[in-house]
Amino acid sequence: MSNIRHALTTKREDDFAKWYQEVISAADLAEESGVRGCMVIKPWGFGIWERVQRLMDDRIKAAGVQNAYFPLFIPLANFEREADHVEGFAKEMAVVTHHRLIADGTGGLIPDPEAKLEEPLVVRPTSETIIGDAMARWVQSWRDLPLMLNQWANVVRWEMRTRMFLRTSEFLWQEGHTAHATREEALEETHRALEMYRACAEEDLALPVIAGEKPENERFPGALETWSIEAMMQDGKALQAGTSHYLGTNFAHAAGIQYQDREGTQTLCHTTSWGVSTRMIGGVIMTHGDDDGLRVPPRIAPYQIIILPMLRDKPEDETVLAYCENLRVKLAAVSALGEPIRVLHDKTPGKASAKRWDWVRKGAPVIVEVGPRDMENGKVAVLRRDALWNLDNGKPAMDFVALDDFVAEAAATLAAIQTGLFSEAAERRDANITRGITDWEAITAHFKQGGKYPGWVEVQWSKPTGDALAKVVEQLKAMQLTIRNVPREAEPATGACIFTGAPAVERILVARAY
Amino acid sequence: MSNIRHALTTKREDDFAKWYQEVISAADLAEESGVRGCMVIKPWGFGIWERVQRLMDDRIKAAGVQNAYFPLFIPLANFEREADHVEGFAKEMAVVTHHRLIADGTGGLIPDPEAKLEEPLVVRPTSETIIGDAMARWVQSWRDLPLMLNQWANVVRWEMRTRMFLRTSEFLWQEGHTAHATREEALEETHRALEMYRACAEEDLALPVIAGEKPENERFPGALETWSIEAMMQDGKALQAGTSHYLGTNFAHAAGIQYQDREGTQTLCHTTSWGVSTRMIGGVIMTHGDDDGLRVPPRIAPYQIIILPMLRDKPEDETVLAYCENLRVKLAAVSALGEPIRVLHDKTPGKASAKRWDWVRKGAPVIVEVGPRDMENGKVAVLRRDALWNLDNGKPAMDFVALDDFVAEAAATLAAIQTGLFSEAAERRDANITRGITDWEAITAHFKQGGKYPGWVEVQWSKPTGDALAKVVEQLKAMQLTIRNVPREAEPATGACIFTGAPAVERILVARAY
Repeated sequence: MSNIRHALTTKREDDFAKWYQEVISAADLAEESGVRGCMVIKPWGFGIWERVQRLMDDRIKAAGVQNAYFPLFIPLANFEREADHVEGFAKEMAVVTHHRLIADGTGGLIPDPEAKLEEPLVVRPTSETIIGDAMARWVQSWRDLPLMLNQWANVVRWEMRTRMFLRTSEFLWQEGHTAHATREEALEETHRALEMYRACAEEDLALPVIAGEKPENERFPGALETWSIEAMMQDGKALQAGTSHYLGTNFAHAAGIQYQDREGTQTLCHTTSWGVSTRMIGGVIMTHGDDDGLRVPPRIAPYQIIILPMLRDKPEDETVLAYCENLRVKLAAVSALGEPIRVLHDKTPGKASAKRWDWVRKGAPVIVEVGPRDMENGKVAVLRRDALWNLDNGKPAMDFVALDDFVAEAAATLAAIQTGLFSEAAERRDANITRGITDWEAITAHFKQGGKYPGWVEVQWSKPTGDALAKVVEQLKAMQLTIRNVPREAEPATGACIFTGAPAVERILVARAY
Repeated sequence: MSNIRHALTTKREDDFAKWYQEVISAADLAEESGVRGCMVIKPWGFGIWERVQRLMDDRIKAAGVQNAYFPLFIPLANFEREADHVEGFAKEMAVVTHHRLIADGTGGLIPDPEAKLEEPLVVRPTSETIIGDAMARWVQSWRDLPLMLNQWANVVRWEMRTRMFLRTSEFLWQEGHTAHATREEALEETHRALEMYRACAEEDLALPVIAGEKPENERFPGALETWSIEAMMQDGKALQAGTSHYLGTNFAHAAGIQYQDREGTQTLCHTTSWGVSTRMIGGVIMTHGDDDGLRVPPRIAPYQIIILPMLRDKPEDETVLAYCENLRVKLAAVSALGEPIRVLHDKTPGKASAKRWDWVRKGAPVIVEVGPRDMENGKVAVLRRDALWNLDNGKPAMDFVALDDFVAEAAATLAAIQTGLFSEAAERRDANITRGITDWEAITAHFKQGGKYPGWVEVQWSKPTGDALAKVVEQLKAMQLTIRNVPREAEPATGACIFTGAPAVERILVARAY
């Protein structure tokens, strides 16, 4: 394959971090904004996010959760009242202190000292406390429960070291917040949301994930249980791609979310919260990207098929364009993966070959080129992004197909690409989870000698808490390792704890992580 | 009609402002958040906004505009460089000065003095300057033009006096930003966006509007032309429901948005911006609301038909529920106004009559009630929100219809409601625009003697500028009047300016406004 000239300068195996940045740039996904820690999400990147939003929102609504919108600004008092929460979040937040600018007299602007807020406002890092206030107003009786809300919003957590999509000061997400009559119902909702995330990640984003409970030290501030889905990136690191929290009555107590039960007794609600963010796009890049750029799974591709007319500034261009437009109309009438095919007839100026490579880097699932000769033969030239190269000759694996055959096969092709991307990632993930390690030295050896991509290890532990857990966390941290989660579908424990030697109670995934 | 017992306490004619607040509360649209100037948009209100978003977004995408996302925070320097813009916007904005909170030692939190930002950041009041920065990076050649972007976002303009949906410190909107090679193309885009707003307002929200150019004093800061759509509320006041701006090369010059033309010359772009916001929901309330609450036009109703089973905690409830579910499935399979009917089978606890009035106040277009007797007769009881009362007996105008007939007629019914709401509002608007007033005394008399709802007057003027215009604005302001716009479709001027006596050049709308 050495004769293949890949579309990117940096290869994954040479410098994964640099490759990641190059994909983001080459696929036109996002860029630095000039505002510290904030990125600009460019149309192709935002189009992918819109698709994720649409598909997730359908799942959210199907579960009976209602969208609403709550203030961007949160009073300090909200953070002060929930001790664990403030401890977890009070550190790095954007604080609004003034509501006016005035001229400084030298051509510049400064916050007007006369317009200082009596109480500073925090730009929401998450909305448990402000939505809790609303829930306290809206919940009176058992009849009002469950109350299931969601908002799509921007949130801000001031970050010192940022990386596009993975860790930015401002990011976009959805946050679900629900209140229930009982612990059982709230736990059920916690798991429903987790399962929804698993399904969306695997079915829509083609990201194989492992769903499980986070250890105590990784819980959301104020939560009793935090569950996550974890995806394996191509460098073997883990990416937490979504979390679902059971908050017990902690937030209900702080905000006064209570209901009169059927017997007339005032009772605290049990609440949950759950979120996924634009971080998922980072997961898509690091799972499906290759040395030619991004590969977007068809379900979340803004356009699934790109039609490129090969024009020569000659009169016959018109007939090529008409042929392409006919193809576009035919494809748009086809349903693939449950929706009409999203097809773009790209008539922008530029050479077809340059435009082809733009779309390869962007990761459009299928690219179709049409030149005068193809047209005369009633054919189209088809390039599948998931099978880009002819390995025999190192050239793009262009397939010349009769137009009607291509249209007839289009839905099956897109479905195959969706399935294929998932399978490829799932096989890589499964091949890189090591089980059966039973002592700490073997872990050390694994992560030292495992090459660049040691993947994850699943080990048994005794679920220590408090100081004992802190010691384990330190021990792992020295190796740049973290506990990802306790996989929901793991085998029961049968041996000894790898850290303490005590009888193990469950299995955990240990990995390097983003 | 005096025997009708309306669902609201306050009638429009008694106290329009109080009525407005009561509709917002009774229809479960929004509420005060406890955070100064910020509201909570409740699920029914947000559902309406989601519908507006979806329909507008389809129009935006159909025009070839691409969605993207830009930072919430804008550096001060961006505001400093465009003089007119800073003059217009620098007054009331939320300013972030710190990026961390710390404990104050007495259980509270304060901004950490160690974490003061070197340069304060402004929470975006609008994004011309930050999107301009991106455009300057993205536009190099004539091939990159036009560049047409849009973002759906929250923005903040600190407001001293707020009113829900109409004027809140934080609000939701879309802002389109485009860059073009020539003045002509930018003006064309300005008008395309305006026409898109007119179409969306009239066809989707059933809001009749008058599109026209704003006078100089009402221009967006930094714009050369500002166009608006103006809707008439039931109290005769005007509501500016959307604006489209031609920015000339002002922002392009400030941000450095330029392109190399076909001859190789660096040339400044001509830019536009255009936006509509959650303010439109206020317009829907004040146009379509009545003394029983809101009436939501079917195209933007989250649910168009509500099915209410009348249950009695008896075994036959099950068959009623099954009958209702059958109805729901049948309706959901019907297409109305170009989309599948949005139907809710409302099985929440509570008496059907109480739930009926909840949905009346919320303004669901059609409410269907089903009791055991209706079921036995194969019927449903239908209540149209746009024809709520039987004026003969002062009771709800419930219509008993065979289930299959109701399903067969559902699409036509919804289309008729959509059309009817628009016609009713258009007739009221047309009846309340007074033309032919030719002197200032007559205007004074009109607005003094015209009763509570003097509506708008269309008069001719000489389009004064500068100080002469300022004088006119002052003169109008003394009567609480403003110039709304120069209607796009107005007749040519034929007489004298009502303010200066000079020959008139165009006609303007004068009105009280929100």
